[in-house]
Amino acid sequence: MSVASTLANTDTDKLNRLLAVSQVITRRLDLKALLREVIVQASELVSADRCTLWLYSPDRGDIFTFIGQGLDEQVFRMPLGRGVAGVAAMERRTIVENDPYNSPYFNPAMDRQSGYRTRSLLAVPMESHEGRLLGCFQAINRLDESREDGVGAFSDDDVELLTALSSIAAIALENSMLYEEQQRQFQSVIVTLATSVDAMDPTTANHTKQVTGISVALAKQMELSEKAVERIRIAAILHDFGKIGVPDTILTKPGALDEEEFQMMRSHCLKSILLLRKIAFRRDLSDVPDVAGQHHEKLDGTGYPFGLRGDEITLEGRIIAVADVFQALTQTRPYKKGRSPREALSVCRQMTQVYTDHHGRTSGVHLDDLVVDALEALLDRWQGDMTFFEAESGWEQMLSGGGA
Amino acid sequence: MSVASTLANTDTDKLNRLLAVSQVITRRLDLKALLREVIVQASELVSADRCTLWLYSPDRGDIFTFIGQGLDEQVFRMPLGRGVAGVAAMERRTIVENDPYNSPYFNPAMDRQSGYRTRSLLAVPMESHEGRLLGCFQAINRLDESREDGVGAFSDDDVELLTALSSIAAIALENSMLYEEQQRQFQSVIVTLATSVDAMDPTTANHTKQVTGISVALAKQMELSEKAVERIRIAAILHDFGKIGVPDTILTKPGALDEEEFQMMRSHCLKSILLLRKIAFRRDLSDVPDVAGQHHEKLDGTGYPFGLRGDEITLEGRIIAVADVFQALTQTRPYKKGRSPREALSVCRQMTQVYTDHHGRTSGVHLDDLVVDALEALLDRWQGDMTFFEAESGWEQMLSGGGA
Repeated sequence: MSVASTLANTDTDKLNRLLAVSQVITRRLDLKALLREVIVQASELVSADRCTLWLYSPDRGDIFTFIGQGLDEQVFRMPLGRGVAGVAAMERRTIVENDPYNSPYFNPAMDRQSGYRTRSLLAVPMESHEGRLLGCFQAINRLDESREDGVGAFSDDDVELLTALSSIAAIALENSMLYEEQQRQFQSVIVTLATSVDAMDPTTANHTKQVTGISVALAKQMELSEKAVERIRIAAILHDFGKIGVPDTILTKPGALDEEEFQMMRSHCLKSILLLRKIAFRRDLSDVPDVAGQHHEKLDGTGYPFGLRGDEITLEGRIIAVADVFQALTQTRPYKKGRSPREALSVCRQMTQVYTDHHGRTSGVHLDDLVVDALEALLDRWQGDMTFFEAESGWEQMLSGGGA
Repeated sequence: MSVASTLANTDTDKLNRLLAVSQVITRRLDLKALLREVIVQASELVSADRCTLWLYSPDRGDIFTFIGQGLDEQVFRMPLGRGVAGVAAMERRTIVENDPYNSPYFNPAMDRQSGYRTRSLLAVPMESHEGRLLGCFQAINRLDESREDGVGAFSDDDVELLTALSSIAAIALENSMLYEEQQRQFQSVIVTLATSVDAMDPTTANHTKQVTGISVALAKQMELSEKAVERIRIAAILHDFGKIGVPDTILTKPGALDEEEFQMMRSHCLKSILLLRKIAFRRDLSDVPDVAGQHHEKLDGTGYPFGLRGDEITLEGRIIAVADVFQALTQTRPYKKGRSPREALSVCRQMTQVYTDHHGRTSGVHLDDLVVDALEALLDRWQGDMTFFEAESGWEQMLSGGGA
């Protein structure tokens, strides 16, 4: 349905508003941000007190909406054909109810629960270009200052505008869903890959997942930007990709490695970098190969593969290095019992200083003390519970698709 | 810049057209399709004989455009600041030239080359919401039936319309570029993964790339839909993912495998399926795990992992099975010389029939004869040259990003 055909009678002011709204919403590829924006724009466009965007779930055959924002956000579901929105969606028709309490479709349960009073209601189905049901807009309580209670009736103009918005929003919604599908595909493939690499050596199961969670938690604790946190997440997931090129006889060898084997083992870092450089990362992730390959570099320049020093190692690389050491220390493996998080922290702390052992051997500064400070703060907060770290990895959401 | 502010003086007809155009172009996430659509819409909107969309390349600091379509398509580049479009892009301003041959910016070289005569010209820069230069629209020869030669001057109205279209197209273009970046990221990570899996056993280098190319070529030869071809491409790339879970002592063992090792080797198929089922594939790729896991099934039900028979194996699975056998037959490995494509074809042909060898052992039908027919047709066409198959894999484009 083209907007042009539906809007033959509206004036330039409304058309201009629609064009402006169209630009504002089509700009959003992030699904959640898009939904929030669409609701705001729809409410303003038809002067409604509230607006809800219901999305159709083909798998469940119901419609759902998000209530609240951020951590408090909940998904609210309703069967097709139930309530005004459910009927509008199922029968693919616009419904105006300016006296809802006398409507056969209106479901007063939500009003009773919320204490809100619905006085007028407009529901418009949302369909894709090919006619697939995508969901339903629902505008509640048409604001009208001329009325004593401030609420009037939805007009034909409102219907026209919300219908036009619905077909614009449908395009934006489909684009954003395709984009998120594509994003999820990438995320789930790298998580599956990382899990497989961990599984090449049964003693390191969950290593990468925990390193990812610890790195992300550290980055957030250090108040890095959202983009930097995402970069760290991806780099941590892929930091051991190069192990795929190390024979598993060496990866899983129980005893000590000879010099040649040791070099082969260490080569995984450079292999990770070379493999990751082949990947066409999104612009904001272009540093991932370098960051991922720095997890064995040390501040004093004695690390590998490049022997970088201090600032030559990115902050993200220094964070993953701490996460990698900390995880390895806490993990129980056939040849050693894992240390407690507190013990592991104090070993990490030692590695932020020049240290001479009781044989008189001196080692330089390996880890960044600011990162270890952040680790200490996290352990204080979570009382050393490693499950918090695993949750921060975000792997479950990346595999399943998360959300509704 | 909001459309609303730039269009205060236009009438409802134009606004309606802009809204309709906005819907048509924002629907396109595929970059090439979007560019074609935008050019068509822009020409119609301002009644221009021709329209060109120049894209800005930040890496090269020039603007470029695609000339022609499909196989004949070429990229044409021009330095910023050169020609009317180059000046409009560099100085971020609209330029109207209704007497181009007397303009200081106009470059008549292209006219001389093409024999076309530019009589009027309108160039409008295209910027992102944040003010980044994205490119430049150039409309040539304003059609005007009232004039003897059919060409008139671009008006203020045309400028207004093309400016509005430019800001709408900018959003669509950015979305489509983000989508393609995301898609490329996925493609390049699975190709890198497949290359790494192949490299776990040096004797199978390039196996997956060739299987991918052969499968894609077979699917095209059999006239499968574009979506099915893409599904086959992705499934072929990932068909040996499960080998990551097979110890490389077994993968690379030079001699014969004992029964336990043989079972372990065969387990890669089921492992591929289980790993791939963890990936949140895009809707149109949801069959990839099944298809990829069927490359060792045989029509007579003697294959693995599930012993599927005949139609129980998807056509895509039967195609990859032929590609896998054919590639293995032609590849030279330490313990055997590769057969010529013709010899390999006749072995494949044998496997489409019940066959009794000179020891009296009978084997059933393994491969689909329609697929082997297609293979024969391809070998006839390419005279057995395997490099054509490798090119069909599309791996180079998937890694580098392809295009300009």
